[in-house]
Amino acid sequence: MIRPGSTLGILGGGQLGRMIAMAAAQLGLKTHIYAPEENSPAFDVATEVTVAPYEDEASLVRFAKAVDVVTYEFENVPSETAATLSAHALLAPNAQALAVAQDRFLEKSFIAGLGIDVAPFEVFADEAELGEVLERIGRPAVLKTRRFGYDGKGQAMLRPGTDAAAAWVELGRAPAIVEGFVPFEREVSVVAARTASGAFAAYDLCANEHRHHILDLTRVPAGVSRETEEQAVRIARAIAEALDYVGVLAVEMFLVSDGGRERLVVNEIAPRVHNSGHWTLGGAVTSQFEQHVRAVCGWPLGSAARLGRVEMRNLIGHDVDAWEEILAEPGAHLHLYGKAEARAGRKMGHVTRVFPERD
Amino acid sequence: MIRPGSTLGILGGGQLGRMIAMAAAQLGLKTHIYAPEENSPAFDVATEVTVAPYEDEASLVRFAKAVDVVTYEFENVPSETAATLSAHALLAPNAQALAVAQDRFLEKSFIAGLGIDVAPFEVFADEAELGEVLERIGRPAVLKTRRFGYDGKGQAMLRPGTDAAAAWVELGRAPAIVEGFVPFEREVSVVAARTASGAFAAYDLCANEHRHHILDLTRVPAGVSRETEEQAVRIARAIAEALDYVGVLAVEMFLVSDGGRERLVVNEIAPRVHNSGHWTLGGAVTSQFEQHVRAVCGWPLGSAARLGRVEMRNLIGHDVDAWEEILAEPGAHLHLYGKAEARAGRKMGHVTRVFPERD
Repeated sequence: MIRPGSTLGILGGGQLGRMIAMAAAQLGLKTHIYAPEENSPAFDVATEVTVAPYEDEASLVRFAKAVDVVTYEFENVPSETAATLSAHALLAPNAQALAVAQDRFLEKSFIAGLGIDVAPFEVFADEAELGEVLERIGRPAVLKTRRFGYDGKGQAMLRPGTDAAAAWVELGRAPAIVEGFVPFEREVSVVAARTASGAFAAYDLCANEHRHHILDLTRVPAGVSRETEEQAVRIARAIAEALDYVGVLAVEMFLVSDGGRERLVVNEIAPRVHNSGHWTLGGAVTSQFEQHVRAVCGWPLGSAARLGRVEMRNLIGHDVDAWEEILAEPGAHLHLYGKAEARAGRKMGHVTRVFPERD
Repeated sequence: MIRPGSTLGILGGGQLGRMIAMAAAQLGLKTHIYAPEENSPAFDVATEVTVAPYEDEASLVRFAKAVDVVTYEFENVPSETAATLSAHALLAPNAQALAVAQDRFLEKSFIAGLGIDVAPFEVFADEAELGEVLERIGRPAVLKTRRFGYDGKGQAMLRPGTDAAAAWVELGRAPAIVEGFVPFEREVSVVAARTASGAFAAYDLCANEHRHHILDLTRVPAGVSRETEEQAVRIARAIAEALDYVGVLAVEMFLVSDGGRERLVVNEIAPRVHNSGHWTLGGAVTSQFEQHVRAVCGWPLGSAARLGRVEMRNLIGHDVDAWEEILAEPGAHLHLYGKAEARAGRKMGHVTRVFPERD
């Protein structure tokens, strides 16, 4: 059993690792961050750090042996890395969750296999098959690489008239799928946690707005019907159970209006703490970061209750220049990630605002 | 001006330094902890650490030059240390606040000089003077060393029949004062913050219960009249202004019932974040740690509003063995300080419980 005083290993040194490390420290854990980049944001708050590539087996083994449990902040952990870590330490979430989440085809097949709605999707091997698949699915559609897509990267819209083959060349002819475009009303997500013993706790559904394909604003409550809210949580739970998932996960969904009736279509799974759960830090009794630490340590989950109506806005690039105005705003919770340079598109921090609940 | 990305230096590596460092990291600051003990609790969450004695001038100068502003977590910073740091860096709170707070005679004289009630007190030079002073003040009285007293250490009750000279020998014949005993109803404290530009914010008055002279339980609200609450805040503000204070300070007071009327008698000042302010972490919009960081950096203060009725209990020694039960309690916020050994009397952590406000 993991006890306070044990060491939590975290793969990845970005803001998610940083916020997990702070939650771990609050609960009396030591932390050890493994990341390839010098001066990673999470290093500022870690007990120990290892700077080494994710492919460096000797360093991975040393790291795994030095910690009591390993978790990660990003889903593109190479499968060999996960296997090496699993051989020498407890890895949570497990390697299967990683394998499913990092390949869009596996991910969508897995979700559809649970009887959960996803957009129609198909793989293809070459230009000829791409054409056939696209004909079956119909335009508009979205071409998505199977791996390494995030924040709109690795995607292309296939509208009427778009040269699909050329779009695929743009994506490096990487293994990809064609997905039917979902005309959604709103993007929502469920952030939830599950422990090895099957305990499960979901935060309230949140509504997400993107700017240039990057999350801009999360609002909770999401403003959907109670039935939809309950269905979203059932979906997240079914996914977590089917993966024997341990830790926090996020399930991104499209809210579709089907002749006036709300319907949920799952878009993707993030096997980790998630940007759309940042509102829980200050906006819920237990933050997603603390919840993740509790789950991976095998500890009781905390209350996921909301403290009010919450809005979380990302500070992207030079948005962060407003830090002083935000500090002057009563009740705004500012979180900065300690990144030196405010490059365009770079997540520099976020601000959470909690308002009394409207009745 | 201090900006995010700057480095906050913290003198002292205990749990207060640890919680200040985490608040600083949340606001995008780097931290550098200076402490004499290897493996200090605050090191786990610091960007940089220096392990050196507080008397090591060369190390102090290097530390001061490596950071943008220096603060501290304990009031017994030697005055030479404060002077060395002040010569090379911004020190907040200032050296005067330290000088006043670390000598009970100076402290009480200063407070009385502001027209604020304190217990009657007098210094003495030898046994003969001790006898005369005690006669003037009357028994019961409290013999207190001028310096280095905390958690009941450096004190002796002088009841009718107590051999005062022997009690002084027990305290090593250290410079001391005799204080009249205050028959208080309750111990209360104000935790407040002031910035260099004079902005001031106080948290609600809290009531403190001690066990074996160590803080056990803090409750907010304190259950006093509105007039008393306002007076307590006026007192804290007057003290902060007279010291040109920058940062969070705590003012401990006795609540006395004077023929049914509430009266406040100041006991002591802590020129730092304070155990009786731990409830603000999770129990107020802005924690005392974040507030302290904002103040010493010259940033706007955050809202000190309370999130409900709050109770904070210290986990002393083996109290911490209940960590798992506490984690299982919905809505309890557990904070552990990462100390290896649960020795008797050692502050291992605390738990904060926030309840809906009673009307």
